[in-house]
Amino acid sequence: MKQLEERILQDGHVLGENILKVDSFLTHQVDFQLMKEIGQTFAEYFQSAGITKVVTIEASGIAPAIYTAEALNVPMIFAKKAKNITMLDGILTAEVYSFTKQVTSTVSIASKFLNNRDRVLIVDDFLANGQAAKGLVDIIQQAGAEVEGIGIVIEKSFQDGRTLLEKAGQKVVSLARIEHFENGKVVFKEADL
Amino acid sequence: MKQLEERILQDGHVLGENILKVDSFLTHQVDFQLMKEIGQTFAEYFQSAGITKVVTIEASGIAPAIYTAEALNVPMIFAKKAKNITMLDGILTAEVYSFTKQVTSTVSIASKFLNNRDRVLIVDDFLANGQAAKGLVDIIQQAGAEVEGIGIVIEKSFQDGRTLLEKAGQKVVSLARIEHFENGKVVFKEADL
Repeated sequence: MKQLEERILQDGHVLGENILKVDSFLTHQVDFQLMKEIGQTFAEYFQSAGITKVVTIEASGIAPAIYTAEALNVPMIFAKKAKNITMLDGILTAEVYSFTKQVTSTVSIASKFLNNRDRVLIVDDFLANGQAAKGLVDIIQQAGAEVEGIGIVIEKSFQDGRTLLEKAGQKVVSLARIEHFENGKVVFKEADL
Repeated sequence: MKQLEERILQDGHVLGENILKVDSFLTHQVDFQLMKEIGQTFAEYFQSAGITKVVTIEASGIAPAIYTAEALNVPMIFAKKAKNITMLDGILTAEVYSFTKQVTSTVSIASKFLNNRDRVLIVDDFLANGQAAKGLVDIIQQAGAEVEGIGIVIEKSFQDGRTLLEKAGQKVVSLARIEHFENGKVVFKEADL
């Protein structure tokens, strides 16, 4: 997605070895116009996949996910993140390890919101090691629902999240794919859309 | 907001003494259509207030806030919640005590996103004790910006958040106001919009 790549080059900040900060339009301050176009781009691609729900994870995934849900005319569900959840009735959970923060958290969705007729599109802001997306896939499959695809705003292609998800049979569609960072600059590889 | 009240009566669940669960359209699964109408309602009311930013707090505030931002054609910022933040350069923070969870958390916004020419509309999903909104007001004022109003989706009018904020000179505008719960049913008082 050309417009997204241009915005990353213009407003993104490369920090250290492998961190890209996009807090001026995606992860802290949010540009609704860009989110709207991201949502429309995902929706157009998955138009004929019969999507019934869009699922994301709090918090930065919510804005791109709600506009994707709007463009597909379906509800959006955001999974909750918590340090430790004691098992509760009616809650589907997965453990997600964060390599960045080096902590395991429990991701959960109330089981009443997913059923075995659902065809789900996962949307998330970043794909790096793929642990969050893998947790969401796990939860959705526990509900007997089908994951139709995983829409990613920014993929760090030099980390192994995409490979992990594809090996598990998932379709990953990324709007911007970062091949590597070079002298504090982002170098893209060809995006999916 | 009639449509919101009807939705609360239809899909909300009263749990125990003073908990209203609206996880099927606001706090977990999200109805984009309702969020859009909420955003338009706030935007219409604050149309001539010269709003330059909409500020909310992760995670349930994000969906109503982004549609409010869209309708006002301004950026949205969501404040971050964390257990403990060591003071970092360029971060404005406030301590927020949650009566429900009985924990204090630190709410933060990067200072680069607010300045003394900003006129801010705060949007949040719930107002109960007003601690979260008070923290946001504090942060926005630290930046030298003006809080033009606080738009609340669901106010628990039997708790003292509104009084607290009004005493601090803030304008509170709530789309649904819960007077009390009666035999597991919601009883509304007249909403602001």
